[in-house]
Amino acid sequence: MTAGRIIDALQCGHFNRDSFLALRAGGYSAVTPTLGFWEDTMGSLEALGRWRDMERDNADLIRIARSSADILAAEREGKVAIVLGYQNSNLFGGRIRFVELFAELGIRVVQLTYNNQNELASSCYEAEDNGLARFGREVVREMNRVGMLVDLSHVGDRSSREAIEHSEAPVAITHANAHSLYPHKRNKSDETIRALAARGGVIGCVAYRNITPDAACATVDGWAGMVARTVDIAGVNHVGIGTDISHNHTPRDYDWMRRGQWTRGVDYGAGSPDRPGAVPKPEWLKSPDALRDVGPALRRVGFSGEETAKILRGNWLRLYARVFDRA
Amino acid sequence: MTAGRIIDALQCGHFNRDSFLALRAGGYSAVTPTLGFWEDTMGSLEALGRWRDMERDNADLIRIARSSADILAAEREGKVAIVLGYQNSNLFGGRIRFVELFAELGIRVVQLTYNNQNELASSCYEAEDNGLARFGREVVREMNRVGMLVDLSHVGDRSSREAIEHSEAPVAITHANAHSLYPHKRNKSDETIRALAARGGVIGCVAYRNITPDAACATVDGWAGMVARTVDIAGVNHVGIGTDISHNHTPRDYDWMRRGQWTRGVDYGAGSPDRPGAVPKPEWLKSPDALRDVGPALRRVGFSGEETAKILRGNWLRLYARVFDRA
Repeated sequence: MTAGRIIDALQCGHFNRDSFLALRAGGYSAVTPTLGFWEDTMGSLEALGRWRDMERDNADLIRIARSSADILAAEREGKVAIVLGYQNSNLFGGRIRFVELFAELGIRVVQLTYNNQNELASSCYEAEDNGLARFGREVVREMNRVGMLVDLSHVGDRSSREAIEHSEAPVAITHANAHSLYPHKRNKSDETIRALAARGGVIGCVAYRNITPDAACATVDGWAGMVARTVDIAGVNHVGIGTDISHNHTPRDYDWMRRGQWTRGVDYGAGSPDRPGAVPKPEWLKSPDALRDVGPALRRVGFSGEETAKILRGNWLRLYARVFDRA
Repeated sequence: MTAGRIIDALQCGHFNRDSFLALRAGGYSAVTPTLGFWEDTMGSLEALGRWRDMERDNADLIRIARSSADILAAEREGKVAIVLGYQNSNLFGGRIRFVELFAELGIRVVQLTYNNQNELASSCYEAEDNGLARFGREVVREMNRVGMLVDLSHVGDRSSREAIEHSEAPVAITHANAHSLYPHKRNKSDETIRALAARGGVIGCVAYRNITPDAACATVDGWAGMVARTVDIAGVNHVGIGTDISHNHTPRDYDWMRRGQWTRGVDYGAGSPDRPGAVPKPEWLKSPDALRDVGPALRRVGFSGEETAKILRGNWLRLYARVFDRA
């Protein structure tokens, strides 16, 4: 039974049993939690180890998925599939050989950069983006080989377009909106979204207030309308959901996400001096299980049942199968 | 065709294609190379990555084995199985959760301590051995769970005996001789060897001059005689081969093995002020392929064909099956 089942390509924060119960109640088929932002190899392995423990402790609710078949199995078992991902490439520690090792440990999604330029590429917040760098070109191809999905959500525009072109497999923008719908450095140009779609990729629409139109934060129908406008850009086969929902975030977590170990100064991330701290969740999405209301809303804004199923689940599942299952 | 096939539970140094050709010429079924002595998690992962590359580059000669079935498959394919191991537990970085992750990456043998006491246990060179420590007890049980062989070769005597008792699976002394045959801190008491055998473990007889009787270095028949005396202690089902053959070692490698990053002073390892540097290889074992002469020598000192096959290969294979295949 997959009608109404949802794949959310990006959430973050501290998951616990209550999180998993909420995801199951919401009809989630799969979700990608964020295992790291600035963490190095050791910290990334530690996060992975904690997720292994969480899987053992909540084996009735979740299942770490390494393939599209694992996601289908989780659906049959009434569990939520966990597709492990990082929002930065620091886990690789600058070693090309570590890509294969992390893939073997079950990591399936890695964003090339978080908020800062690194050895791979430039981020959306740098003053200039000089494109996909030498190590980035190596890592993208190695991720292709071992079946990892390249995520470009926080990556700079030029770097993103070069990664789309350089990758042999389709890539993802797991959590960003269209810049033409809400101008913000984190959101993507129509040109980049179209290039992504042309190569078979998928963009996940966000429900994070700092980068999402007010109307899309006010009501679920408003958000469904934003999805429809994104479909106008990318096509109905290339849009999915990537809410950026956070679980149990504390001020300390925001501090880590924004400042990591790289600055003693202030950084607002997607916020601004006017919005320095945590922003309120969208009115219609105060809890992860409320995401189940998106399906009916997509029908109300005019999508057919088949189209709705693609946006909720099918487009990500197709991309996951193409990327994960080739290894 | 397994007659004459050999499993060597411990070699070290820089393997290359010539090494693999020599191993194949010697009739090796499997060998455990040393991936690390003092290396931390990063260095240990790097060594693993290099072995992945070596496997790809020499796929006609070697195969990394994760199970007894993989060893049998390598034999059928005319390849040498590589059973990955470390001579220290620094790869775990003090994290119990990393044991599972390294097991999943194919690591099958880990020695609890190299030449120094660590968080797990005391080494054979410490002035006193206060037994298997708290973290050591955790790691031994976790290695049991995930199918890793506990190696006690450089571990202190009391720590070794406590690890033998604490482990739920049989354990190994992959490369040491009997102290009663050659008194040296690195060699094991008859009591420890008997305790190991009583729990189903195996001791690998060494051909490293610093810890091996002169007669056993002079001729292969002398070495076979030493093996026979070890069988007198442990029983014929509990003795195998663990030569400690080194490939392409340089003075810098000896320096790393002995001093690592832990001293500015002098440490002789198994050597002594009289034997400070590299010692000559045994007269009969100048090249790894000469190990094929051990089988006939074991027959000459009185072992039956069946007993010889156990010592050459069968005892390690049984232990590997029991430990590796339970995960």
